[in-house]
Amino acid sequence: MLTHTVEEGPLFNRFRQLWDEIAPIGRDEHSGGYLRYALTEPELRLREWFRKQADARDMPVAEDGNGNLFAWWGDPEAGNAVLTGSHFDSVPHGGAYDGPLGIVSAWLAVDELRAAGVSPARPLAVGAFVEEEGARFGVPCLGSRLLTGQLDAARAGALRDAAGVSFAEALGARPAGADPALLGRIAAFVELHVEQGRALVDQTAPVAVASAIWPHGRWRLDFTGEGNHAGTTRMADRRDPMLTYAFTVLAANKEARLRDAHATVARVAVEPNATNAIPSRVTGWLDARAAEPETLAELVEAVRAKVVERARRDGTRVTLTEESATPLVAFDGGLADRLARLLDAPVLPTGAGHDAGVLAAHVPTAMLFVRNPTGVSHSPAESATDADCVAGVTALAKVLEELTR
Amino acid sequence: MLTHTVEEGPLFNRFRQLWDEIAPIGRDEHSGGYLRYALTEPELRLREWFRKQADARDMPVAEDGNGNLFAWWGDPEAGNAVLTGSHFDSVPHGGAYDGPLGIVSAWLAVDELRAAGVSPARPLAVGAFVEEEGARFGVPCLGSRLLTGQLDAARAGALRDAAGVSFAEALGARPAGADPALLGRIAAFVELHVEQGRALVDQTAPVAVASAIWPHGRWRLDFTGEGNHAGTTRMADRRDPMLTYAFTVLAANKEARLRDAHATVARVAVEPNATNAIPSRVTGWLDARAAEPETLAELVEAVRAKVVERARRDGTRVTLTEESATPLVAFDGGLADRLARLLDAPVLPTGAGHDAGVLAAHVPTAMLFVRNPTGVSHSPAESATDADCVAGVTALAKVLEELTR
Repeated sequence: MLTHTVEEGPLFNRFRQLWDEIAPIGRDEHSGGYLRYALTEPELRLREWFRKQADARDMPVAEDGNGNLFAWWGDPEAGNAVLTGSHFDSVPHGGAYDGPLGIVSAWLAVDELRAAGVSPARPLAVGAFVEEEGARFGVPCLGSRLLTGQLDAARAGALRDAAGVSFAEALGARPAGADPALLGRIAAFVELHVEQGRALVDQTAPVAVASAIWPHGRWRLDFTGEGNHAGTTRMADRRDPMLTYAFTVLAANKEARLRDAHATVARVAVEPNATNAIPSRVTGWLDARAAEPETLAELVEAVRAKVVERARRDGTRVTLTEESATPLVAFDGGLADRLARLLDAPVLPTGAGHDAGVLAAHVPTAMLFVRNPTGVSHSPAESATDADCVAGVTALAKVLEELTR
Repeated sequence: MLTHTVEEGPLFNRFRQLWDEIAPIGRDEHSGGYLRYALTEPELRLREWFRKQADARDMPVAEDGNGNLFAWWGDPEAGNAVLTGSHFDSVPHGGAYDGPLGIVSAWLAVDELRAAGVSPARPLAVGAFVEEEGARFGVPCLGSRLLTGQLDAARAGALRDAAGVSFAEALGARPAGADPALLGRIAAFVELHVEQGRALVDQTAPVAVASAIWPHGRWRLDFTGEGNHAGTTRMADRRDPMLTYAFTVLAANKEARLRDAHATVARVAVEPNATNAIPSRVTGWLDARAAEPETLAELVEAVRAKVVERARRDGTRVTLTEESATPLVAFDGGLADRLARLLDAPVLPTGAGHDAGVLAAHVPTAMLFVRNPTGVSHSPAESATDADCVAGVTALAKVLEELTR
């Protein structure tokens, strides 16, 4: 039986020790943020660290052929297993907690169970999913989408990063794709994650349970016009795709506000991106999310219609391509209620996508959120206190003890 | 005496020969445009080609310690010299003609003079200026500004490219800075350049003489906000600098149209530039030009005021920094009239900056423009017919013969 009170002491120290081991890996000295793109050197070092943690706990590591790692306590073939874990990869200059907190907490939860003499009646696995952020190959939750068959293996293998390296090349092999046998042996997945909003800031609870993930997606907008000299081309003669792009940024913001939804244009690429050359091409990416699928569809359609009309006026052309779409994810209600009662924790929805959202369509899945005092995420300013992180480990250990009974 | 009629024949072939020698250097296969940044490998190859052309004509090359090259026919120390030439460097994915046409034409004009038995009474130099576009180190006409003392040598040496390499490092030495002695020995500078607008398209003349360069400049706008998660941050809680940037793009366009001026925001840098991360910082560059200095000042001030107001509403901050400013350049009126009569050519202003604009404040300077059938410039689509280029060579030879009498 676990001790359910947490005090500053050994667990604080063990959390800090593991955290400090990975803290320098992939950190950009200038921004203080992280550059831990999937299968690049920093993320490969984190995967090596994962294997060392597994070895130290005598938990054999199995790969699924898609870049996801699973370390097993108990027989992987026995079935009825409980999986916990998260991802190592970051957005560009992202925070330290988004992803790695779920993996560090998983190892410490295993330690807590063992220290308490808990012997799980069912196999327990710690997992690390590849390319959750989509920052390198453009498709978020790439590893979990492959494993579940939501993404075709050939298509995933051909995705290329900005330098032209394909996912298959980075992985060193063609991805294996869907593995229903492995999924069939997992009875529950629990992902612990730093909160990415301010919902827990004013509550006494350091940990919440997730109810749902908003439907969301990414759309690429390719604006083309006519490259020309910025100094000599009359305003009336221009076909400047930057104008249409700029209009899109503002239109997406307005349409989202009108619908209590979220829309963001945060990424742009310009050709040639020179001060004195009207661009020939501008590419922008729209991230849109809403509580209801109908609202999301309306939002994207409203942006599309306004942008097409504006392109006509600018003499430019625009195409809108869906790069990824994630439907509404309602986590297993029974499981969420059970964990909320166990932990005496509030239940919250989130606008952020997660591997847990992908797995939820295949296995009963839950998420635990650890309080974030600023609500800031995907930024070097993302944070969580050590005390809340330790509370997260304790909560996760309770959940794993409960689920592996 | 030169033969003043041009027919398809030897000069066409010689033009095509020289042009074909340099055409592959720095050409991007994908865009068909050029990546000939100052002092990078392609531009260094063009400088080597320049030295070979000078050697072949027995014209010793002197460097000015600022990265500019001068090949001399006659005694460099004699004074009262006539200089012609242009630059090799390009904007990103720029056209083939902007810059190199003036240097190729200079060599061919020397050949024309020699073939006609002309023996200049004054020294004649062919020059290649460094970093005219400012595409690598951010300051256009860097070489001519250094030579004339318009830019401090220490400041220029410390300018850094996107990879952090300083101009001094790229040059292999601290720039020498102003050289009034050298300038004092130059009695006239003539730069031949491809036209960058459509002013000659509907005229019978393939060559024009420049009257003036519009005052123009570059301003950097740094927008800062709060990096955050695009999925979880409520619209009302955002401080998104991309919104303020987008507003700026549209405001600059509108304010320029209201004043018959030119304003362009064609270059942007975003941190972190990730689809699902509200940026913490966006940097945009404003290129603005107008026929009158007062109009230009009003335009920039109007953009600034509107953008500052918008930043207040967006919860962001913006700073506007002048990166370069070039006053109105009125080319030597007597010289322009003399050349226009000699060539029976129209006289035109331009919105584009040139090394000739910088030198005009120090020595009598003229420019010749060669017709551009599309008016497109700073783009792979930039063009000029061989016949017009040959007409340009013939016109330049006539001008040099006249000025070196």
